[in-house]
Amino acid sequence: MSQPVSHSVDGLTRFRMDFAYDGTDFTGFVKQPKRRTVQGELLAAMSVILGETSNDFAMRVAGRTDAGVHAANQVVHVDLSAAQLKRLGRSTNMVAKLNKMLPEAIRVHRFEVAAPGFDARFSAIYRRYRYQISDDFAPKDPQQMRYVLNLTYALDPEAMNEAAQVLIGLGDFASFCKSREGATTIRDLKRVKVKRNSQNIIEIELKADAFCHNMVRSIVGALIAVGAGKATKADLIRTFERAKRVETYKVVEPKGLTLIEIGYPVASRLGYQAERSRARRTLDES
Amino acid sequence: MSQPVSHSVDGLTRFRMDFAYDGTDFTGFVKQPKRRTVQGELLAAMSVILGETSNDFAMRVAGRTDAGVHAANQVVHVDLSAAQLKRLGRSTNMVAKLNKMLPEAIRVHRFEVAAPGFDARFSAIYRRYRYQISDDFAPKDPQQMRYVLNLTYALDPEAMNEAAQVLIGLGDFASFCKSREGATTIRDLKRVKVKRNSQNIIEIELKADAFCHNMVRSIVGALIAVGAGKATKADLIRTFERAKRVETYKVVEPKGLTLIEIGYPVASRLGYQAERSRARRTLDES
Repeated sequence: MSQPVSHSVDGLTRFRMDFAYDGTDFTGFVKQPKRRTVQGELLAAMSVILGETSNDFAMRVAGRTDAGVHAANQVVHVDLSAAQLKRLGRSTNMVAKLNKMLPEAIRVHRFEVAAPGFDARFSAIYRRYRYQISDDFAPKDPQQMRYVLNLTYALDPEAMNEAAQVLIGLGDFASFCKSREGATTIRDLKRVKVKRNSQNIIEIELKADAFCHNMVRSIVGALIAVGAGKATKADLIRTFERAKRVETYKVVEPKGLTLIEIGYPVASRLGYQAERSRARRTLDES
Repeated sequence: MSQPVSHSVDGLTRFRMDFAYDGTDFTGFVKQPKRRTVQGELLAAMSVILGETSNDFAMRVAGRTDAGVHAANQVVHVDLSAAQLKRLGRSTNMVAKLNKMLPEAIRVHRFEVAAPGFDARFSAIYRRYRYQISDDFAPKDPQQMRYVLNLTYALDPEAMNEAAQVLIGLGDFASFCKSREGATTIRDLKRVKVKRNSQNIIEIELKADAFCHNMVRSIVGALIAVGAGKATKADLIRTFERAKRVETYKVVEPKGLTLIEIGYPVASRLGYQAERSRARRTLDES
């Protein structure tokens, strides 16, 4: 807690926590009864440190990840009561304390009082994901097996990259989303880049205001078809324009996917952004 | 099999196989009944491909690794009979076939007829290992948790590196070896280098003609004591000169350890080196 300024919401103090995880052995981020989840582990560790019997710390996450998906930089906020804050006051290093409690698959990087107006989910202006593929040209590295999709054939990253650009901009990604009653599938895809990295692994990086469920893995499935010569850029355009979910392309395995970054605006715009996102979300879901 | 020249030993043809593995979920390299081992997996895959009922392919490994230790470049040789060779003749790509059969934690890089005189173990002139430590200064990366030792305090890699140099050269490493009846503990440590790498992880690299059992992990344990300020270079010299196993320093966890390279001489000296090593080993063990 490097920031001494406390930020109070409804008598609670909001904290921002930044952390990373290897999602392999978790049933996704979100807490579920009788399942090992990232949120479940975080809440359990906080309960021990803050001496709570309840596991509820009003935690909100920036990017809900599915089972098996990893995060290099995930963000949540938690709202702590005056009583909890008092116990916390005695903890000199919350990051070290949490990391001592948590399994090594989850590592906390930062735990600080949040800036005024901050909301981990609604203040975010973009999410950035990376999908890694080891194709026939890539070295076979067992130390990467939990983080890359292994393919036994060759892909053409240039063709994939060229085709991927047709998805850029504000559009209806229904063709690539697992639909949810009443939820919009309109998203602003700001960037997509496919390249072979210095280790010869194919990296697909996607940046959008937000992603709907399965969106990254569905797009990657379509791009793999292009890279393998089984689909063309024109096919991808047709799929996109159909704007409804079709099972043309495979939703690829979660293990190649890592949440890389949650983007926030400058401090002075955190509250404005949160209100804007919340209003839009409410409109969508009403 | 890019080399068409067959190399026959006692009517058998010797093949060299290069491969890598994540040792986390294996009880070491060497085959053991009812245990999941790397060799066990390799033999099982070869049996399927070569249609053998027996799992014995006269396999010899360059560096036997313990449970939990990884390998980026491990080498074995296998001697195949004429009948096995005939079946193999129909396999156009043995590497791809093996990788399809094997768990993703083991990846084969090369499978070729061995050069004349080649012996995976006895032709080797050096082994190179790397041990990785994430100390208090290193980033907390869950995707590295299976490959680095996590410490919650800070180490001084310069002090470690300076002290480590006292171990260089031909010496009796009994202080750092799990003793084995009648086996020598004399080894030629050619190189040891401790540094903080570009990811801020401490890397300890050791190169020797060969390592005795537990040698790398015992040396790393002693170097950690130096790096943490709990032991001095003089203490390390005293331990080394005692030349018998003492429990002064901890044998560190296997997960930080990876076999990086097996060094072989030029082709024309493979046979000479194998004879020399075999003779020395026989002398040791008699």
